[in-house]
Amino acid sequence: MQLDKFTDYGLRILVTLAAKTPARIPTSSIAQVFDLSEHHLSKVASELVRCGFVTSERGRNGGLTLARDATQINLGAVVRGLQSDKPVVSCFGTDKSCLILPTCGLRSPLAEAQEAFYAALDRYTLADVTAQKSALAGLLSDLPSAKMQAS
Amino acid sequence: MQLDKFTDYGLRILVTLAAKTPARIPTSSIAQVFDLSEHHLSKVASELVRCGFVTSERGRNGGLTLARDATQINLGAVVRGLQSDKPVVSCFGTDKSCLILPTCGLRSPLAEAQEAFYAALDRYTLADVTAQKSALAGLLSDLPSAKMQAS
Repeated sequence: MQLDKFTDYGLRILVTLAAKTPARIPTSSIAQVFDLSEHHLSKVASELVRCGFVTSERGRNGGLTLARDATQINLGAVVRGLQSDKPVVSCFGTDKSCLILPTCGLRSPLAEAQEAFYAALDRYTLADVTAQKSALAGLLSDLPSAKMQAS
Repeated sequence: MQLDKFTDYGLRILVTLAAKTPARIPTSSIAQVFDLSEHHLSKVASELVRCGFVTSERGRNGGLTLARDATQINLGAVVRGLQSDKPVVSCFGTDKSCLILPTCGLRSPLAEAQEAFYAALDRYTLADVTAQKSALAGLLSDLPSAKMQAS
């Protein structure tokens, strides 16, 4: 199974903010340092704000920060939030066209497998996965300094 | 997380063959009844053959059959086989471009989550998920009969 790029990029935003906390970092800087589309990353950031993981402030010193401490951001909750509208198989979403849907015995095992995937991530917080904070901050040292502002 | 269409279609082929066993069913008939591309389904069928789950015979009475009893076909093994070259996130595959890869703490949780997903499916066989065989066979009664041959 695959996580889509939307979730992948959401995780990169959170790791970056955790590594650089308490700095306020523009989406454009994160896009630049990871060589990603700023337009796409802005949509991901909006979803992280909507889910309550990130705070966004506008203006000259604007940017993204974690909405709460990294120890209080659960990895399973993040991935569930970012994946919420993406079904594990199409019939778990709006596509009910599969001929065998009425008696398909795959639905229960697939639902269990999906929950097992999230449950494994529930055991970790953003703080756990950014424990090597100084090494991460070093890798992210090219975050455009002119655009990076301390909060 | 999502299973791709390749795996989805592979599961539909196996469920169809289990429901109709011991009939030999052409890929074209399965494509027709599920309204899927025969070209795409042929590639999926080839992979099922390569993995040892399905036997394919050519010729006028040719088609697909299960390579072994449905009780001997493990669902986790099927999905692992069909997903083998599709990483959960791009950096688990050949794309090593992510800036934070050298110290990324997400890799271990994501690997554990992936394994938990497969482990949940390991608890089921194709026989378990096709227990309602007569109901399934009923839904599949439109499999083009002229092309469907008993083995």
